[in-house]
Amino acid sequence: MRVIELKETVTASNDRDAEALRQELILRGILLVNLMSGPGSGKTTLLSRTIRDLPDLRIAVLEADLDATVDAETIEALGARSIQAHTDGMCHMDAGMTRAGLEALGTEQTDVVFLENVGNLICPAEYDTGAQRRVMILSVPEGDDKPLKYPLMFTKADIVLINKIDAMEVFDFDVRKVEDNIHLRKADVPVFPVSAVTGEGFDPFCEYLKGRIGRHFERG
Amino acid sequence: MRVIELKETVTASNDRDAEALRQELILRGILLVNLMSGPGSGKTTLLSRTIRDLPDLRIAVLEADLDATVDAETIEALGARSIQAHTDGMCHMDAGMTRAGLEALGTEQTDVVFLENVGNLICPAEYDTGAQRRVMILSVPEGDDKPLKYPLMFTKADIVLINKIDAMEVFDFDVRKVEDNIHLRKADVPVFPVSAVTGEGFDPFCEYLKGRIGRHFERG
Repeated sequence: MRVIELKETVTASNDRDAEALRQELILRGILLVNLMSGPGSGKTTLLSRTIRDLPDLRIAVLEADLDATVDAETIEALGARSIQAHTDGMCHMDAGMTRAGLEALGTEQTDVVFLENVGNLICPAEYDTGAQRRVMILSVPEGDDKPLKYPLMFTKADIVLINKIDAMEVFDFDVRKVEDNIHLRKADVPVFPVSAVTGEGFDPFCEYLKGRIGRHFERG
Repeated sequence: MRVIELKETVTASNDRDAEALRQELILRGILLVNLMSGPGSGKTTLLSRTIRDLPDLRIAVLEADLDATVDAETIEALGARSIQAHTDGMCHMDAGMTRAGLEALGTEQTDVVFLENVGNLICPAEYDTGAQRRVMILSVPEGDDKPLKYPLMFTKADIVLINKIDAMEVFDFDVRKVEDNIHLRKADVPVFPVSAVTGEGFDPFCEYLKGRIGRHFERG
């Protein structure tokens, strides 16, 4: 398991660094997805299923955590390229950290890189990483009121996945209400209810990803 | 519903401000508890049960969120004093913000004040709020690996509650493993498995609280 120790970037403008990284990746036909959620919402399980369900897609994963290597080990066990980045206590990834992480990961022969951001509903929303898409996960056990409490995260998301719908019966969670709360923050953001464990509702997310891949993509 | 808009404190030393606040509250016989967890781990549900289960305890709650007033409304509906603090986008409470929040809340005729911190497993652990005790909640759906990924939070906690044990059957969660992972971070921290929804395992937590109250406390 490879581990890279990152430091917060000292830069004049994170936004400018992020835009430069984004344009470079677009030119190279690589889709960078910034995957964000609170702790334990199922980011790694979602990536595991994505890797299994889309075997023809060349997926690599940049895992960001304060400590541990469990997530990168999970991804590597599936045969996908992965590296574990440690954020030196930082609650988010910035564009410079993302660039350093991508260089350590390697991006040759790659269609999609997922940046699994630090589990946190606040700070990661404040920093552009250079990703083309921000995918946000809210899980059923967290509750349908979260878009009210974490406004910026839901305003920045390009799509929202409602994960762990297989546990819906155990929790007091209203899908209609959470969609209304999300759309208060961003009127037109697509919301996909899914279960990364059972695979329920996963096809629309896979189609969404495939629609954003640079190269011609045929389902295997 | 009362709402106070807070700003980050400009101060020479947050640690010194926190210690001053702590000593003032100890002299006045008020227990301040800093309740921390990720988003949706059940902080408000836990407080609701605590208020119901300990009717003789004079409990007040300082709710901290980036936005919304849902939590303070929940507490107020139970008849407890509460105020909603908004953190101006900040991912944590500091000692000055806590002092301002307590002044707006009012602390006369109070045994315990719970500061329900912003839902976040990173930043709140970095700031001493002046509380005498840090109570941390990890919920079953978040997974038993979280102490590996969020080291400081589990190092700072005085007790850890494992909440949502009523949902244990739905999730792949090992209580023995999470206890081992927590004790890697802090060898002697007590771990209480509880369900704030069903009340299972709640008595030891109530006893813990009563043991730390300044005035003579008899169960009603």
